Amino acid sequence: MKQLVCVSALTLALGWGGAATAVQSYEIPEETAQTARELMETALDSDLAYEIVESLTTEIGPRLAGSEAEARARAWGAKLGEELGFDVVEIEEFTMPFWDRGRMEITMTAPYDQALYGTALGGSGRSDGDIASQIVYFRDIHALTLVEDGALEGKIAFVDGEIMVASQVGAGYGAANQRRRIGWQHAERGGASALVVRSVGSDSRRFPHTGMMSSRDGDWADIPVIAISNPDADHLRRLHNLGESIELTLSSGAGWHGDVTSGNVVLDIVGRESPEEIVLIGGHLDSWDLGTGALDDGAGVAITVAAAQLISELPQRPRRTIRVVMFGAEEVGLLGARAYAGEHQDEIANHVLATESDFGARTVWQLVSNVNDDANPAVDAIGRLIAPLGIVRGGSDVPGGGPDIIPLAYSGVPTVRLNQNGLDYFDFHHTPDDTLDKIDPAELSQNVAAYAALVYLAAELDVEFRTTQSPEGASE
Amino acid sequence: MKQLVCVSALTLALGWGGAATAVQSYEIPEETAQTARELMETALDSDLAYEIVESLTTEIGPRLAGSEAEARARAWGAKLGEELGFDVVEIEEFTMPFWDRGRMEITMTAPYDQALYGTALGGSGRSDGDIASQIVYFRDIHALTLVEDGALEGKIAFVDGEIMVASQVGAGYGAANQRRRIGWQHAERGGASALVVRSVGSDSRRFPHTGMMSSRDGDWADIPVIAISNPDADHLRRLHNLGESIELTLSSGAGWHGDVTSGNVVLDIVGRESPEEIVLIGGHLDSWDLGTGALDDGAGVAITVAAAQLISELPQRPRRTIRVVMFGAEEVGLLGARAYAGEHQDEIANHVLATESDFGARTVWQLVSNVNDDANPAVDAIGRLIAPLGIVRGGSDVPGGGPDIIPLAYSGVPTVRLNQNGLDYFDFHHTPDDTLDKIDPAELSQNVAAYAALVYLAAELDVEFRTTQSPEGASE
Repeated sequence: MKQLVCVSALTLALGWGGAATAVQSYEIPEETAQTARELMETALDSDLAYEIVESLTTEIGPRLAGSEAEARARAWGAKLGEELGFDVVEIEEFTMPFWDRGRMEITMTAPYDQALYGTALGGSGRSDGDIASQIVYFRDIHALTLVEDGALEGKIAFVDGEIMVASQVGAGYGAANQRRRIGWQHAERGGASALVVRSVGSDSRRFPHTGMMSSRDGDWADIPVIAISNPDADHLRRLHNLGESIELTLSSGAGWHGDVTSGNVVLDIVGRESPEEIVLIGGHLDSWDLGTGALDDGAGVAITVAAAQLISELPQRPRRTIRVVMFGAEEVGLLGARAYAGEHQDEIANHVLATESDFGARTVWQLVSNVNDDANPAVDAIGRLIAPLGIVRGGSDVPGGGPDIIPLAYSGVPTVRLNQNGLDYFDFHHTPDDTLDKIDPAELSQNVAAYAALVYLAAELDVEFRTTQSPEGASE
Repeated sequence: MKQLVCVSALTLALGWGGAATAVQSYEIPEETAQTARELMETALDSDLAYEIVESLTTEIGPRLAGSEAEARARAWGAKLGEELGFDVVEIEEFTMPFWDRGRMEITMTAPYDQALYGTALGGSGRSDGDIASQIVYFRDIHALTLVEDGALEGKIAFVDGEIMVASQVGAGYGAANQRRRIGWQHAERGGASALVVRSVGSDSRRFPHTGMMSSRDGDWADIPVIAISNPDADHLRRLHNLGESIELTLSSGAGWHGDVTSGNVVLDIVGRESPEEIVLIGGHLDSWDLGTGALDDGAGVAITVAAAQLISELPQRPRRTIRVVMFGAEEVGLLGARAYAGEHQDEIANHVLATESDFGARTVWQLVSNVNDDANPAVDAIGRLIAPLGIVRGGSDVPGGGPDIIPLAYSGVPTVRLNQNGLDYFDFHHTPDDTLDKIDPAELSQNVAAYAALVYLAAELDVEFRTTQSPEGASE
């Protein structure tokens, strides 16, 4: 026994096998397990998710938060829900401030003329005509944070850094996007007339990556803030290292345009026994305007809608309600997610489990969770059932569930997540290259299979995922 | 014996083993072979080629034919030749008509607004302000060639087609670029106000590929001709297949600007015994303006200059002269190559062998040739010597030698070529993404090793590659 205990301790220490021990166990009733397996088979043979994301990206195109295109996407989503036979279809509107990038140009003018490939970051200010200046080079965001007040007067700050580290779990993103998030606050403090940063992306392609900056207590940048592609940043670095004086000319038409309407699309498969209990899944309907939002997040919308639709074709509804939410305005600060949490305040306690697909369209490789400890054996059992899809059980104490789930998680809703392989996700993330051709239909179907089984089981099994404790540490 | 003959016939029929038979043989003198092997070792350990292409792309940048930047590149090339100790350094200027793309915009305006990623093709005309029209969709260039005169009046023609087939030898290029080459002639015949074509590229990235059109007896397009990226063309195809009416708004500032100066840079390592006999190698100095011309053709310039420089460090000069030519204005119609052939008319008969590196920076995998039959055993022997680099002997009747070698080949100069792996060459070709980061230094060094050995042996061995017959079938 002593040896067994040691192995068990090692297993826990290394994070193997989740929190389940040999003592606890949960067996999915065979009939229910068989239904879940058949759902996976059906999903692997189905083109539905691909057809959905093809339709969204082709018929609607880019869907900037708050834009007319995002409104068309909501109508598209509601129509899709009707056509696919969801029991309840609602559009829940909310109001948000509208920003768009307008026209932007950036050219290196010394030591010679060369067009750079850049894009405004979300929340960037506009320029009054062209800004032409020498750059002050910062090796990384840390160097910029040390700049003295007013030291950049009349200059353009350029913040270099490294190409974002690629990893299966996207672990390089948080560190890299500091220059995108807070760079402007230090550039403005230094008195710079504009800020240019190395794009946050793991690729070496010449597309810039956009993305939202962080506000400073609700205030946004007055100056233009432009991200340039990794190869362009490499180029400036090499010239800087040669001792060249680098000058840029840039202009930005970005800015805020008052309040507009956005919204969430809510589609329900109403539960047959406990319709008030909700298993929430979804993706976000808005996208950045540069690409057509296929990976981010047309795929997530398509995967979760298709999974729910396949479940709705079963002879009977699952016990609990399955709710698919197409969140609006995710990219600009989880506005749809916050609006949903506010709008559904009264029924948040009824949300038994929530998860979002918002990490591209590659295969799912890991199931992680953050549920009531007593429910972990059931999640482990679900993990065993979907393991043939190539999915391993990961941690049982991983907060999150996806960006749009954060407000729910903070309110105590248990979460799970089907982690996709994100190794090349940040090659395309927030670039013009986020287009339909990047999606492999077979990989997309594997996602649907995993969601269909997981969501069906969560809605059908008599498992209480909720806890009276509020989960801590939930984060983006 | 009968069996042997049969095997031999099969070998020839399948093109194995070049034209050498067991009867003919050539042995490289051991001392010379040893020098060639040492050159390969030195080259594999050398960073010189990478340093050269880094310098060219960083310090000069894009080098459009006839531009001020191309003139700076010539000065750079001559200075490099001096610094590296070439015996003769010459800039040979010529005059050429100058075209540039100006500013271009293209947006889909129906069924909804979406920016497209396009670029003018070389020789495109300009627009008088915006052109806004419905498109007429052609499934491929063949369909456009069948259009009736005047049938496209007031419309924008869009020529779809397939993503260029990727292959090691670039075999998909010729077929795909018909839409780029001759599309405008049929669009104008049809009365179209502009032509939009699917880019000629093997990638599914959102960069358009530029490239020269074909003139019609020296005349160029009056209308704007714009290539859009493969994902954008896919998008229009899907909308067309849905029955949508597609409208575009576009403008082009492209046009011709009269005669300017271009030039070739000629660097010689003068032969110790037969200085009048020339082994010519090179690449082209100009590039398209969208990228920095790292693969096309900074790499070729760097590989051939570095190979010659390594040979120049031997204790003695090879018997024959090694000439490196950095050709000007290749992209716009081999203008530097034609100028060189004209300028050196009197000594063309002294060019004993010629080859160019102009197919990217991936490893060399094959040696092909088109020389005097009696010299094939010597080329086979060179092939055996460089085989350890991972290079196989290919055909001995392959005309060419590289684009800038065509005028020489037509004048009877024998050619060889070290074929590079071009599987991903047309992913980057003529796009903004042709930048330094696409070059692997180790692969570049393998190229230098192959060139150094080949060129040293061609210049040192007493082999007559020339023939009294003019080679036929030389082509781009």
